[in-house]
Amino acid sequence: MKTKPSVADDVRASFAQQRIMTLIGASLSVVEPGVVEIALPYRADLAQQHGYLHAGIVTTIADSACGYAAYTLMPAGSEVLSVEFKVNLLRPAQGATFVARAEVIKAGRTLTVVRADIFGFNSQGDRGLIATMLSTMICLRELG
Amino acid sequence: MKTKPSVADDVRASFAQQRIMTLIGASLSVVEPGVVEIALPYRADLAQQHGYLHAGIVTTIADSACGYAAYTLMPAGSEVLSVEFKVNLLRPAQGATFVARAEVIKAGRTLTVVRADIFGFNSQGDRGLIATMLSTMICLRELG
Amino acid sequence: MKTKPSVADDVRASFAQQRIMTLIGASLSVVEPGVVEIALPYRADLAQQHGYLHAGIVTTIADSACGYAAYTLMPAGSEVLSVEFKVNLLRPAQGATFVARAEVIKAGRTLTVVRADIFGFNSQGDRGLIATMLSTMICLRELG
Amino acid sequence: MKTKPSVADDVRASFAQQRIMTLIGASLSVVEPGVVEIALPYRADLAQQHGYLHAGIVTTIADSACGYAAYTLMPAGSEVLSVEFKVNLLRPAQGATFVARAEVIKAGRTLTVVRADIFGFNSQGDRGLIATMLSTMICLRELG
Repeated sequence: MKTKPSVADDVRASFAQQRIMTLIGASLSVVEPGVVEIALPYRADLAQQHGYLHAGIVTTIADSACGYAAYTLMPAGSEVLSVEFKVNLLRPAQGATFVARAEVIKAGRTLTVVRADIFGFNSQGDRGLIATMLSTMICLRELG
Repeated sequence: MKTKPSVADDVRASFAQQRIMTLIGASLSVVEPGVVEIALPYRADLAQQHGYLHAGIVTTIADSACGYAAYTLMPAGSEVLSVEFKVNLLRPAQGATFVARAEVIKAGRTLTVVRADIFGFNSQGDRGLIATMLSTMICLRELG
Repeated sequence: MKTKPSVADDVRASFAQQRIMTLIGASLSVVEPGVVEIALPYRADLAQQHGYLHAGIVTTIADSACGYAAYTLMPAGSEVLSVEFKVNLLRPAQGATFVARAEVIKAGRTLTVVRADIFGFNSQGDRGLIATMLSTMICLRELG
Repeated sequence: MKTKPSVADDVRASFAQQRIMTLIGASLSVVEPGVVEIALPYRADLAQQHGYLHAGIVTTIADSACGYAAYTLMPAGSEVLSVEFKVNLLRPAQGATFVARAEVIKAGRTLTVVRADIFGFNSQGDRGLIATMLSTMICLRELG
């Protein structure tokens, strides 16, 4: 099943307005119903003191992936906001590229719960799980 | 009570190596035993699609503040890493400036639990609580 | 400021219907606007394998304290449900008595964020912080 | 692959010492390397005010399942303690029986991250996901 084109288009249009994504160099790689992936090539200016991707940047792509995954299942005219998230950092965030893959666990009328796994890929394409997020998103409806 | 100069110096030196802090324009504003604050002026290129500071950037300054707050209470020669954090987003992240204030709740030999509140300040200096973090940090000791 | 009697009465009536509270021997000790405390004497049949109060029972009193703290600030005719909570376990749950003290951080129309600290008291009345919870509660309104 | 008998035996012996499990009527149903399930038949005296299983009791079986799942992968002579957990409550905890299924995501020397899904089963055996936990466990080693 493919998301209705309009929903995927909405996600892409919204993503394009997230100026932080341009700043860090992230891009949308998958938009399907209930599933969104965001990819981010490593850059040294996104790192913490040991040269690993900063946990906050791991969170930035994971949070947006979760928000848009929730959004793909919301009625037209909705807005999505993050209520809360928890991130467990499993391994140092090393890699040539990072991908946050978010999947909706439970879509509700008001609240949607989304899980994201964040992977690091080395230059050979080997994948390691570096962090996992469990988040709650809220649907704000158009008053119109 | 003031942190031993060497600890505050260590924190400042480590912070200076976090290149992500330079990219987003964050600075260390307070370093005391068990308490660290990081300040971040708003910039449009740090925003999500509604123009608010992205939750991942809120997390970036909160996580580093928590890590360094924990670090101020660790033995010399330690390294600190984030184990996990949870963030509740309380209000839209609006403001001219943001401050993440982290305070250690429980310092342990291996694990330290830290809470951070993240405030937005408008141009008149009025303060609003926009998010709160509850995090676990781990102390890695020098093998030396 | 005291909560309107009707709200405190509502909380007490609801608490009396939580049969789990009777099973474990918990009681409401404080009901004020935005603040609720629940007390629980230690019993060996509430313990895990080392004889400490089980983290799930710590959570049971903390979750109900958070829920009722949120409820005290909700409109008449509301119901409250837990959306999510995170608990950091800071010390072994030892004590003669335990108290979960919940305070609302942010009361919203739909969602309310509540923090709870859980203390153990020894037989001399000395208090130790054993755990802290950060939770989200949702307000369900009467359709009436 | 089956867990070494001694590990499964250790888990069963430890579980038998968790007197809270006897009080609420929970039992170990699966013990495999990195995976543990705990089952709990519904009882009205475990319920909150609406008659659903209390979130704290959902947490009680999920936390123990996570702890033992981590323990199955730890060296002989270790003890396991919960560091923290987050629970998202997805649906009212209705059912004739509940099962918490915990699976290790990342086993480390000191810290192990475990996810648990908690299901309700109705009297026909239909299963619904009612909650999910993401937890951190710590390994304490014998000083020997």
